[in-house]
Amino acid sequence: MDLDHVYMAEALAEARLGASEGGIPIGSVLVIDGRIVGRGHNRRIQQGSAILHGEMDALENAGRLPASDYARSTLYSTLSPCPMCAGASLLFKIPRVVFAENRTFVGAEDWLARKGVELRNLDLREAREMMLRFIAEHPDVWNEDIAV
Amino acid sequence: MDLDHVYMAEALAEARLGASEGGIPIGSVLVIDGRIVGRGHNRRIQQGSAILHGEMDALENAGRLPASDYARSTLYSTLSPCPMCAGASLLFKIPRVVFAENRTFVGAEDWLARKGVELRNLDLREAREMMLRFIAEHPDVWNEDIAV
Repeated sequence: MDLDHVYMAEALAEARLGASEGGIPIGSVLVIDGRIVGRGHNRRIQQGSAILHGEMDALENAGRLPASDYARSTLYSTLSPCPMCAGASLLFKIPRVVFAENRTFVGAEDWLARKGVELRNLDLREAREMMLRFIAEHPDVWNEDIAV
Repeated sequence: MDLDHVYMAEALAEARLGASEGGIPIGSVLVIDGRIVGRGHNRRIQQGSAILHGEMDALENAGRLPASDYARSTLYSTLSPCPMCAGASLLFKIPRVVFAENRTFVGAEDWLARKGVELRNLDLREAREMMLRFIAEHPDVWNEDIAV
């Protein structure tokens, strides 16, 4: 169990919080110099939000940051980041993205890799099972979230 | 003066509204079947938001939409869309993106084009001059917005 798993446990806690609110169970934290500076979870159902994926919520909650802060950051997400969230991490030049699984959804990993972002997939069963449960129960909401 | 200019005039109105609030003057509208379903402008200064670029604000204000709605939409922005906003339009599979200029900033146009999104640059002086004025007066805020 390395540090990535420690921070991912916080992203998973956010995902569970989202699930407890009846939302899509995807959580995220932004870490700079070993400190969590932003955390969040998908708010589609809770706030009727089209753009507040877990990663976007964490980035928003981190507030306005200078480029020099993002340059030292790692973005953790319980799911492989979609094109919007991948694009946000590229905009902010976040050098490293760690996700908990990509079996239920493969985001824009190829784009991130091509742009030189370091990626790590922890392939965690807990994250996958939370997503599988939600998708089985609310396929319509999940499809809406990824515009399928 | 074709329809793209008519909708872009609304995005420009949003940019001017942002400027009048002391914000970064970038505006956007989302159009479906000839109707503006969402409009917005950059909220970095006004709301301390890291993610509410003009396009993201318009997408958020459009609310939760089914994929079939996005599939018939065009996203208008007064500036070439950054990686985050380009990624959002790819997530939602928005087939067409029109922007007012790309002389002050070139976003992720190559990524959009590679993914088959139809792009049109109206190259409007008004949009460019608004950006140049803001960048000259607030270079620090602009650099923060694009993580430079």
